[in-house]
Amino acid sequence: MSQKLKILLFLTLFHTHVAFASDPDPLQDFCIAFKDSASGNPSCKNSSAVTVEDFTFSGIKFPGNYSQTGFSATPVNSNVFPGLNTLGMSFVRADFDVGGVNVPHSHPRATETAFVMEGRIYSGFVDTNNRVYAKVVEKGEVMVFPRGLVHFQMNVGDTAASILGSFNSQNPGLQKIPAAIFGSGIEEALLEKAFGLNAKEIAKLRKRFLPH
Amino acid sequence: MSQKLKILLFLTLFHTHVAFASDPDPLQDFCIAFKDSASGNPSCKNSSAVTVEDFTFSGIKFPGNYSQTGFSATPVNSNVFPGLNTLGMSFVRADFDVGGVNVPHSHPRATETAFVMEGRIYSGFVDTNNRVYAKVVEKGEVMVFPRGLVHFQMNVGDTAASILGSFNSQNPGLQKIPAAIFGSGIEEALLEKAFGLNAKEIAKLRKRFLPH
Amino acid sequence: MSQKLKILLFLTLFHTHVAFASDPDPLQDFCIAFKDSASGNPSCKNSSAVTVEDFTFSGIKFPGNYSQTGFSATPVNSNVFPGLNTLGMSFVRADFDVGGVNVPHSHPRATETAFVMEGRIYSGFVDTNNRVYAKVVEKGEVMVFPRGLVHFQMNVGDTAASILGSFNSQNPGLQKIPAAIFGSGIEEALLEKAFGLNAKEIAKLRKRFLPH
Amino acid sequence: MSQKLKILLFLTLFHTHVAFASDPDPLQDFCIAFKDSASGNPSCKNSSAVTVEDFTFSGIKFPGNYSQTGFSATPVNSNVFPGLNTLGMSFVRADFDVGGVNVPHSHPRATETAFVMEGRIYSGFVDTNNRVYAKVVEKGEVMVFPRGLVHFQMNVGDTAASILGSFNSQNPGLQKIPAAIFGSGIEEALLEKAFGLNAKEIAKLRKRFLPH
Amino acid sequence: MSQKLKILLFLTLFHTHVAFASDPDPLQDFCIAFKDSASGNPSCKNSSAVTVEDFTFSGIKFPGNYSQTGFSATPVNSNVFPGLNTLGMSFVRADFDVGGVNVPHSHPRATETAFVMEGRIYSGFVDTNNRVYAKVVEKGEVMVFPRGLVHFQMNVGDTAASILGSFNSQNPGLQKIPAAIFGSGIEEALLEKAFGLNAKEIAKLRKRFLPH
Amino acid sequence: MSQKLKILLFLTLFHTHVAFASDPDPLQDFCIAFKDSASGNPSCKNSSAVTVEDFTFSGIKFPGNYSQTGFSATPVNSNVFPGLNTLGMSFVRADFDVGGVNVPHSHPRATETAFVMEGRIYSGFVDTNNRVYAKVVEKGEVMVFPRGLVHFQMNVGDTAASILGSFNSQNPGLQKIPAAIFGSGIEEALLEKAFGLNAKEIAKLRKRFLPH
Repeated sequence: MSQKLKILLFLTLFHTHVAFASDPDPLQDFCIAFKDSASGNPSCKNSSAVTVEDFTFSGIKFPGNYSQTGFSATPVNSNVFPGLNTLGMSFVRADFDVGGVNVPHSHPRATETAFVMEGRIYSGFVDTNNRVYAKVVEKGEVMVFPRGLVHFQMNVGDTAASILGSFNSQNPGLQKIPAAIFGSGIEEALLEKAFGLNAKEIAKLRKRFLPH
Repeated sequence: MSQKLKILLFLTLFHTHVAFASDPDPLQDFCIAFKDSASGNPSCKNSSAVTVEDFTFSGIKFPGNYSQTGFSATPVNSNVFPGLNTLGMSFVRADFDVGGVNVPHSHPRATETAFVMEGRIYSGFVDTNNRVYAKVVEKGEVMVFPRGLVHFQMNVGDTAASILGSFNSQNPGLQKIPAAIFGSGIEEALLEKAFGLNAKEIAKLRKRFLPH
Repeated sequence: MSQKLKILLFLTLFHTHVAFASDPDPLQDFCIAFKDSASGNPSCKNSSAVTVEDFTFSGIKFPGNYSQTGFSATPVNSNVFPGLNTLGMSFVRADFDVGGVNVPHSHPRATETAFVMEGRIYSGFVDTNNRVYAKVVEKGEVMVFPRGLVHFQMNVGDTAASILGSFNSQNPGLQKIPAAIFGSGIEEALLEKAFGLNAKEIAKLRKRFLPH
Repeated sequence: MSQKLKILLFLTLFHTHVAFASDPDPLQDFCIAFKDSASGNPSCKNSSAVTVEDFTFSGIKFPGNYSQTGFSATPVNSNVFPGLNTLGMSFVRADFDVGGVNVPHSHPRATETAFVMEGRIYSGFVDTNNRVYAKVVEKGEVMVFPRGLVHFQMNVGDTAASILGSFNSQNPGLQKIPAAIFGSGIEEALLEKAFGLNAKEIAKLRKRFLPH
Repeated sequence: MSQKLKILLFLTLFHTHVAFASDPDPLQDFCIAFKDSASGNPSCKNSSAVTVEDFTFSGIKFPGNYSQTGFSATPVNSNVFPGLNTLGMSFVRADFDVGGVNVPHSHPRATETAFVMEGRIYSGFVDTNNRVYAKVVEKGEVMVFPRGLVHFQMNVGDTAASILGSFNSQNPGLQKIPAAIFGSGIEEALLEKAFGLNAKEIAKLRKRFLPH
Repeated sequence: MSQKLKILLFLTLFHTHVAFASDPDPLQDFCIAFKDSASGNPSCKNSSAVTVEDFTFSGIKFPGNYSQTGFSATPVNSNVFPGLNTLGMSFVRADFDVGGVNVPHSHPRATETAFVMEGRIYSGFVDTNNRVYAKVVEKGEVMVFPRGLVHFQMNVGDTAASILGSFNSQNPGLQKIPAAIFGSGIEEALLEKAFGLNAKEIAKLRKRFLPH
């Protein structure tokens, strides 16, 4: 097929801009996200090629490496587990060193239920009236973080701790507050006014969180 | 365009896995599902090529052939009536021989309203407390089957019967219990325990429902 | 890649018809609608190519030219502002000459909140019991038009007026009643009965609204 | 409990305004709408009082009386069939005298699939580009009317005709264009400009459609 | 206030039947379901009375007692953990004796992600084409069961096993196939035809599953 | 009616916990939130008592008083404009003194389109990859902030500035980052680790943002 014809076809076809996606209400049993090598466009995997492996995930058997704050997280959304595509769910394994901290963050597109697999974790969220709901939760307990609200966790036990978080979106998103605010390049003047800090204090924070 | 460039483009473009679809809230008047012959990907039909025929369906004027249980169904979802695409609805014509049975089944993605066009049909569903709601419905009556719950029908009249079922999903899905359980290849040991049947009894059921 | 292989691939891939879109619940931060020049299919813009310009719109700084009824509207949906794609919102700037009229119309897929930027505007909607809710709203006031209901506006002040309307759909649609009814080609006999008008009266209306 | 305490409790309790409802995704098997005689507030019927009669409807076995345009409709939404509550569906029986007309109208909150039970019906809708999609549909055929768009029907056969319309909302709403526009009390000056009619012509239309 | 006045008020107020609920998109940070002792109607708990305890759950630290099939499940939905109300999520702890079976069942209103906490579990689901996707999953692995589809599990390891299942509905519902089909009171004649079993065989199954 | 009977009725009625609300898809034309003085429960206003005033809002004609950061906002959600209830929209007027700052914040339940009514405003948001999209927008321009993501604004012009923000939720919520993090009472040790600040620095921030 000639390039010209293709372009013509393209111009003819492309009428309506198209939203890709929305969580609720799948339209088929499943749609394993698939990269069509002919067109370069995403698609559902041919059902005859789907296997049970598409619906299972083995990548969170072990914790990852701890970050600077003694924390490790493996988010499992539809980007890494294509079988979740269109099904409106995803999850995360998080591990905490003793004293480890999951910094204040929010998931812009999901509620989270966090199940404590090991340890004792100070855990909480802040509502839109700036009221904090926090307590120490232990192995076998569950805490719910309402959609979009800032929440946080810290291992206050004597041993490593871990949680399994579940989300009601295939791609909940994650916005870590310290990095989003001080590591993204927002104008310093704005940050100074917003936090009541001086240029030096803001510079210190930016130095810590801006990518090097 | 060279194949290499295509692959490059593909790798560059494919960032976000993509959910295809969700019933609620169309984003345009309609989107007649269309198979783009250039790329092999689904798309909306060019609006200048859309005609009234895309919005009408003539394939359920007559009943189909009865199955082993004296039943015939023609499900009409967006796969066979592309005009339904994005509009969140579909339907089915079902015909019953005298004594014919629509076996216990569920639609995993829709509620159904079933209108009796002809005949007298014992009709019901089971709620999640295992309570059955069933009665004989007659020509001109309507029964509603809540989303995802097992329901069933049997022609208890002296003549053939038929219904028109409507769904609030463009592709409600259909899971017939006998075939899903005994005709799909679930481990025999599991089925024996689940139903309290012995190996011979399970084998009889599997023989009936497994594809030959 | 040969054309044959492409067709084969296409036939293999295309199993499930696909709904493009639904307003609620984005699955990623954003998805700038993009026309893939390789395949001719819509897609999300590669995130490394996204800039702040994709999220800003400058096309409604000034009013457009008044129509026959002294009215001008610039609807800004995801078709003209691709950054709105998947985000479930859009908007419109409308300007009214003195006495200018926004004819009765509906948005089939959205509620509208209309903020008066300038002037005094008789503004209202009709509910499904044919009850009208209308009054004169002034600069700084807001009126809400529930989803799908017919509404209308007329500049009753001494100066030009303008509003900013916002919608909770990326593509709310617009159906202007006079043109939809009399300018679309609905059978005359039906219109005569529906409105209790004679052939001559209908012809006059059709002459005004049918495209020439 | 004293009246004072009640009022106090009320003031304490009433913090958040509350949206009643939304079609998608029921939260229980069913919720038969129930009028609590103690409090006067709507509620779900106690499940032990629910019977199969709550899920069946017998009120559309026969046509109603024809209107001025030779048309009769019995809409069955959750207001008259409480079992539909939360299930996202409803339906309508419509009957047409020979030549009978279902005037141009829209359902602001639902798509409709219309199944022809008897007769030959000129049937169509108008899209947001003022293009009409219309044809004669016959017994056993189905036409789909996308959500919120104006549509219409006229019996063009030699005998009475009837349809069963199904909706993907428990309360789709109905806005008949002639009565909504000319029978609701919209300012005459606005209507004159909108339709290009003079005061006398508008008066004639209003006389026909305004309630007497 | 007199009883008469109350009834009058009630009759005046109760116009629109009301759907209680829908999973997506909360309208406030949270709404702890609350039983208003004045009116007997459900409501959101007064925010000043909300505490962190409303957002945590401690009831699944330990397994329950095994059933006849060596299985125990503690479903945690908004009925038992009111803090989940409006947040669109819930979960379940399931424990398996050696050889224990979670019988084929479906959740009519949710997708499930099942995380294996301990043991080796044969686990799978059946799609709407009666194809089974099953395998043995082990500690730390996750399997996803698409919304509304029949799925099942059996402990095939040498020790007790347990899983944590998460749902994207605050009340996903549970329909166990054996009990729903044979323990709910569906007409025997229908079951005989549906499963190809004789009266005696059906009687045996009903005896096992009908409540005594 | 006796108190006992009431309690009995209450215990009988209250079976299913109930989610109040969800943005998409109204089930009636409108539902003006109403405080039933008999029962103390929210309800829809009797339609005969609804007037056009319920659909209009006059409370944002003028700016409010500037805060410490030279900023003033009047959020208009369904709590203050009951006519928005069930319609899935709300809005805000924001005013900026010269140099005034709208501190980094997020709306956990909505996308926002912000229209600049006056002035020149540095405006932006941060995506979940910590990339900032920011620029100066001017009178008549619009910026979109995707759902749940942190965004911010600062008046960089020589005169007061103002915007009209619109939301696709009737109650989008607002979480101001500085106050949510430092003014809510999150454990100091956690904040120290999260931001890499010492106790003194955290104390300074808490002093500024904790309510006095």
